[in-house]
Amino acid sequence: MSKPTPISGFPEWLPAQRMIEQYVLDRIRNTFELYGFAPVETRAVEPLDQLLRKGETSKEVYVVRRLHAEEGDATDASLGLHFDMTVPFARYVLENAGKLQFPFRRYQIQKAWRGERPQEGRYREFLQADIDIVDRDTLAPHYEAELPLVVGDAFAALPIPPVRIQVNNRKICEGYYLGLGLTDPAAALRAVDKLDKIGPDKVVDLLVETAGASSAQAKACLALAEISTPDASFVDAVRALGVRHDLLDEGLAELAAVVETAASHTPGLCVADLRIARGLDYYTGTVYETQLRGYERFGSICSGGRYDNLVSAGATTFPGVGISIGVSRLLGLLFGANELSISRSVPTCVVVALADERHRPAANRIADALRRRGIPTEVSPTAAKYGKQIRYAERRGIPYVWFPGADGAADEVKDIRSGEQQSAVADGWVPPPADLKPTVT
Amino acid sequence: MSKPTPISGFPEWLPAQRMIEQYVLDRIRNTFELYGFAPVETRAVEPLDQLLRKGETSKEVYVVRRLHAEEGDATDASLGLHFDMTVPFARYVLENAGKLQFPFRRYQIQKAWRGERPQEGRYREFLQADIDIVDRDTLAPHYEAELPLVVGDAFAALPIPPVRIQVNNRKICEGYYLGLGLTDPAAALRAVDKLDKIGPDKVVDLLVETAGASSAQAKACLALAEISTPDASFVDAVRALGVRHDLLDEGLAELAAVVETAASHTPGLCVADLRIARGLDYYTGTVYETQLRGYERFGSICSGGRYDNLVSAGATTFPGVGISIGVSRLLGLLFGANELSISRSVPTCVVVALADERHRPAANRIADALRRRGIPTEVSPTAAKYGKQIRYAERRGIPYVWFPGADGAADEVKDIRSGEQQSAVADGWVPPPADLKPTVT
Repeated sequence: MSKPTPISGFPEWLPAQRMIEQYVLDRIRNTFELYGFAPVETRAVEPLDQLLRKGETSKEVYVVRRLHAEEGDATDASLGLHFDMTVPFARYVLENAGKLQFPFRRYQIQKAWRGERPQEGRYREFLQADIDIVDRDTLAPHYEAELPLVVGDAFAALPIPPVRIQVNNRKICEGYYLGLGLTDPAAALRAVDKLDKIGPDKVVDLLVETAGASSAQAKACLALAEISTPDASFVDAVRALGVRHDLLDEGLAELAAVVETAASHTPGLCVADLRIARGLDYYTGTVYETQLRGYERFGSICSGGRYDNLVSAGATTFPGVGISIGVSRLLGLLFGANELSISRSVPTCVVVALADERHRPAANRIADALRRRGIPTEVSPTAAKYGKQIRYAERRGIPYVWFPGADGAADEVKDIRSGEQQSAVADGWVPPPADLKPTVT
Repeated sequence: MSKPTPISGFPEWLPAQRMIEQYVLDRIRNTFELYGFAPVETRAVEPLDQLLRKGETSKEVYVVRRLHAEEGDATDASLGLHFDMTVPFARYVLENAGKLQFPFRRYQIQKAWRGERPQEGRYREFLQADIDIVDRDTLAPHYEAELPLVVGDAFAALPIPPVRIQVNNRKICEGYYLGLGLTDPAAALRAVDKLDKIGPDKVVDLLVETAGASSAQAKACLALAEISTPDASFVDAVRALGVRHDLLDEGLAELAAVVETAASHTPGLCVADLRIARGLDYYTGTVYETQLRGYERFGSICSGGRYDNLVSAGATTFPGVGISIGVSRLLGLLFGANELSISRSVPTCVVVALADERHRPAANRIADALRRRGIPTEVSPTAAKYGKQIRYAERRGIPYVWFPGADGAADEVKDIRSGEQQSAVADGWVPPPADLKPTVT
């Protein structure tokens, strides 16, 4: 076999990086569970027509078929890999509605696939950590205020720079555009969504061309998008623009509650930013984006929003609100910037040294005694000279080597970083807590 | 959207089942880490030619391509979903050999996909938990004795029936067949591998037809396959058959070490069973299969073996030994038999009740105080009558409801199972340890 080469867009981490990723995932999952979210995993594939029906058509879907599929086997011919967790979760809720308790709080940490052009922090296979709350018929707006607290706590538990969650509410934009007299608020939203990419002048042109806005209306749209406040003072700023609409009022009240709830939980976590639109057309209320401070150039690492019409069966609808942490994106960027490291490349805390291959059974018993008390332990691969066995530990960052006592002498354990060696009993010795597991910094 | 239907072979669990699955995965992972295995994840896709080169050609590979792939885009056109972790891991070792420390101990817990006909406990998308140890040039045989200890400990930590690991060594079969005078030991192995499916008489026929055996040689092959002992006494039983070959001696010594190591660690865990062959042609030493006692009819739930020639680059080879727990298979069978249950369907331990929607900020602060001390907490979805809020907890199996004190009175917490209610402080109260997390039985 010749040396294989990576496939662009399908990242693979080295073991030490994967240990960091697991540490991050464990922390995220722990936070989700502290807020009472229950886990769900959905299959990797969905019917292709469902994948193409939702979200942006520009998403590059991967089609999946059996190599030996029979001709005309329609079931097999029409599957694709999911490109996010939202579409599969919506389907899961409908399929299992009779067995779920509503409001239903779930988290879902899984890979997704998109055939987009790979670039820094943007992959074709990537890991996402999602939470959603879905209720039957109506969903209380306080859930829109809760999600930023959850991801705020999740990020705060990670060894990463602080985040800023930018929030907006679709009702504000839509109500404002309607109040202005525009008749196609969706088109106006799509135009304003391009502000970062094409700049204000071209957005004004686009509003005139695609949303039927007059020049004055277009400028009023821009004025709304320019409002950004760390507290509820955005309400006054919007009022000062002089536009009135019931939907606008509703959105302002909801967004004020989101910002105030977040401020009382973690000051500085959320900022109301009325240019945040989110591309997806199914959002109907609060929308979220998240910047990693100091890494704003990388774009949002955690996004989502409220959707009222994504899931319905006959007359029953299941409105929801969700947010998704882009784990691969976050880690890829931080690995690239050398921002994350781990104290060792294996879970092992102790290597039991071997004087002689015949002593392996006795060394196994020592290792078992340590493992029974939760201490990750390996037995030395060979009965080489002790110097070589110590180097085995050293190269992996394993902190301790255990020397079984010969001829009735006590065992000894050596901290190979300090060289300190002391007698020890396998049924009683414990490492300092900081050494038990690898630490991530 | 009409009600979606499941896709055959792509199982999805309800939240309570997924919680059980996560509990099982956490236990398995913890055991792997106690033995010093480091985590690796590989991408879901491999070049199709690599997938088709290894293992059985009968495996039904899923091909993956971008819906909008450009014509003639060779890279995209030739990918498939992996059908196990062994082939991707072999590729990963070659690709990263310069960055890994050998011997390299890794675990890998991931989904795999096979387009086989779905049946009970056999899925098209399934989760596997693998460990492998790979070294450069040579691999010490003691690792073949270590793997059963690891999976034995992993299974013992789960609330499932006890397991029995059946072990054999390819060298025994091959050496014995050569010692008998057979010239195509691989063909003989393939014939004996069908013993369970077609019975002894047809295996004799097959040995004569496909492996060039005489009737006496075929019967001698069967005699070997019938040997099964819980200790190293199989060595004498094989010797009594009167066949001699150096490779046979080597295999007997290695298998005796595996069985004796296991017996000294966990009596009854391993049994030498010389009919175990494993279909895959890349095994060269010890092979493993595992029966769940009382569920033998379901076949092996954990299999693997030693492979010397799977990974090589030029003159360098990377011999390894690995074993794989079929997690979806195991859980599917146990869920089907109603053998596993969990004490609640959400992680939540406490619901904070609401007298009034205006008290939500105060309830949020109580919930935060509990979460800070690791107690999974939700705030009630509505300020409905207390009876309704208690039913919200009851229906999910949440054990505690917290009542914030009004007008300076102390808070109270109610165990809704016993009805017992006591005053409590959010900064100090702790539930009994058994109630903190859901328990699996």
